[in-house]
Amino acid sequence: METFYILLINIVLSVFAFISTFNIIPRLKEMFITANLFGKDLNKKSENKIPEAFGVVSGCTFLITMFVLIPIIFGRHMLQNDTNQFPHSQFIEMLAALLSICCMLLLGFADDVLNLRWRHKLLLPTVASLPLLVVYYINFNSTTIIVPKPLRDILGVSINLSLLYYVYMGMLAVFCTNAINILAGINGLETGQSLIIAISILIFNLIELSGNCFQAHLFSLHFIIPFIAVTFALLKYNWYPSEVFVGDTFCYFAGMTFAVVGILGHFSKTMLLFFLPQIFNFLYSTPQLFHFIHCPRHRIPRLDKYGKLSPSYAECDKNNISTIGKMCIKLMLIFKIIHVEEKIDGNIKCNNLTLINLCLLLIGPTNEKTLTIILLIIQIVCSLLAFIIRYPLASLFYDV
Amino acid sequence: METFYILLINIVLSVFAFISTFNIIPRLKEMFITANLFGKDLNKKSENKIPEAFGVVSGCTFLITMFVLIPIIFGRHMLQNDTNQFPHSQFIEMLAALLSICCMLLLGFADDVLNLRWRHKLLLPTVASLPLLVVYYINFNSTTIIVPKPLRDILGVSINLSLLYYVYMGMLAVFCTNAINILAGINGLETGQSLIIAISILIFNLIELSGNCFQAHLFSLHFIIPFIAVTFALLKYNWYPSEVFVGDTFCYFAGMTFAVVGILGHFSKTMLLFFLPQIFNFLYSTPQLFHFIHCPRHRIPRLDKYGKLSPSYAECDKNNISTIGKMCIKLMLIFKIIHVEEKIDGNIKCNNLTLINLCLLLIGPTNEKTLTIILLIIQIVCSLLAFIIRYPLASLFYDV
Repeated sequence: METFYILLINIVLSVFAFISTFNIIPRLKEMFITANLFGKDLNKKSENKIPEAFGVVSGCTFLITMFVLIPIIFGRHMLQNDTNQFPHSQFIEMLAALLSICCMLLLGFADDVLNLRWRHKLLLPTVASLPLLVVYYINFNSTTIIVPKPLRDILGVSINLSLLYYVYMGMLAVFCTNAINILAGINGLETGQSLIIAISILIFNLIELSGNCFQAHLFSLHFIIPFIAVTFALLKYNWYPSEVFVGDTFCYFAGMTFAVVGILGHFSKTMLLFFLPQIFNFLYSTPQLFHFIHCPRHRIPRLDKYGKLSPSYAECDKNNISTIGKMCIKLMLIFKIIHVEEKIDGNIKCNNLTLINLCLLLIGPTNEKTLTIILLIIQIVCSLLAFIIRYPLASLFYDV
Repeated sequence: METFYILLINIVLSVFAFISTFNIIPRLKEMFITANLFGKDLNKKSENKIPEAFGVVSGCTFLITMFVLIPIIFGRHMLQNDTNQFPHSQFIEMLAALLSICCMLLLGFADDVLNLRWRHKLLLPTVASLPLLVVYYINFNSTTIIVPKPLRDILGVSINLSLLYYVYMGMLAVFCTNAINILAGINGLETGQSLIIAISILIFNLIELSGNCFQAHLFSLHFIIPFIAVTFALLKYNWYPSEVFVGDTFCYFAGMTFAVVGILGHFSKTMLLFFLPQIFNFLYSTPQLFHFIHCPRHRIPRLDKYGKLSPSYAECDKNNISTIGKMCIKLMLIFKIIHVEEKIDGNIKCNNLTLINLCLLLIGPTNEKTLTIILLIIQIVCSLLAFIIRYPLASLFYDV
């Protein structure tokens, strides 16, 4: 019953966070443009200045909401005045989670303002996830995973990954923060996909609330409800045609929030299932990300003269493609997920390897709004698939 | 012995933090200027672009050092694998402290980039100190203060301030973050004063380490040593003639670090003693801060044609000064700490009410470097005074 009331207060505060974020954003537009934080919408013909990095606004309202929520969540224990009864472990989790999120918000905003280098983008999330890993070590330190039934003859019933499990969690934080960032570039996609992932997590937490990991899923809910509120407010302005851009700030903020609830809520594997489109996009992008194939600075679609978007292409000398790059292209040609042209001058031209361009390749030129909607439908379908894998299918591989 | 080793590792990591900060700063100058984060040095004749907000660099190296330090500080307890033995309270303090500092770093950087309004500058530190107050409540909740001997006849031996004590601590965070920010404007002053305050705290902690609040002072040392390292590296570039400006980012970061160690180290009153110049500067500034007297946008000294600094003045119509403003001027005239001129057109002209201008008023035009040194000597003298008040004098007012 107490849990129910706290969730209710969380929802009320989140509604308040939504209203605040929704009202503050339009007032801050000029401030951001004056501060040189703006970009041009490359998928539009207009030359309007669109203010950027508005993820920092939603991130700050999220943090304020969480700060106000802390005394409410722990209120009963605080009033009891018995320090031995106080749930220190839960409080530690909450603080470590907020610390990691706050760090990523700072890093994201610094990235938007300063254009950080790639090494910073990989190093800093790793460092920011350190407190999280320490907390995981202190509170659980369970690094044993259950082996799926078909592999048990080879590997046994369970494996203790020990240190490897911490490496996995550290990499998860880096992956989540960057995965949303590379599936981006058209109006409303960053906020839209984050909202769908967050709602999927919300549903999953609500289902599991009746299970025996009650506390872990309640923890996740405390973060996800305010996150949905502020992201929804941001989406209202980021939706086609965007009035504001969310920037790396939002992608890092959202990614770290997901990593945090996944790790401390003990459902990191299920959470990765909600990231299927991002995982596909990452794998599909690797030949360009690791420079096996030439990677231009921007890989967003090309705007044609009819105002529709079509895939953008990377062009380079045939001899400049590494052997691994050629193998990747061959493999993708088998699955028909790449379009390659050999030009008369010997140059090779292939579509930029992002899920967005692949969509355009499959459905032909389309307008931006429709493209965002299609990508978000893919995200929803993948979430449904994730639930099927997690529930009916899991029983084939694990004892339920 | 274990404490000694941990402090030694802290010092080694801090040296590393110093070297990193020292090496990174010059490399990032261009990046900051490109990002439009620069200002002109108003106390110089040259029009060079000086990159701003470099407090974010020292703040980030500080956070990274602290994140690496956490597993070391709690290493022994983590390896024991006995969660009941783990010092949860200490760990909570450390996380809450870092969360508050990280929030202020974000707010400071946002302020430098976006030029936030005054209401944000007061609201946000209050919110950022909330986790700190919750931790204080959980871990100590001691809101009883000992009454000084001369007042005991009236007030009794001790008073329980209860809620008022939390208001005091919240205001302390707001005060510390803003106090350094308003005693600023000449090369090296922000970093210099912070360094002297930090070293004073370090000495105080080392003295008290043998007392019965051992743990609280050790906690403070863990923060103050890396803080001194990164601030010293920043001072090297911020010293006259400044190659970089530290921005609000640094002032907020430094202020919150002091507030955090003062509150959770249980020496907030002693810490305020180290803030004597800042407190005087704040009180002296109030007539302008609260607009009893006209307050121009910049109150930094004026550069004369000989390259020396002299006090800057605020000028306004005599009738525009409120009654309180006139009383303040009269009071300050008694103490001879203001210079007022009545002009022929009926306007009133008085020096801008900052400690910097007051110094210039008393010693006459001087160059910037000498002025900074004089102000830092005042800071050192005040620290010595603080130690005299804290140790020999305190025995007159309290039972030692």
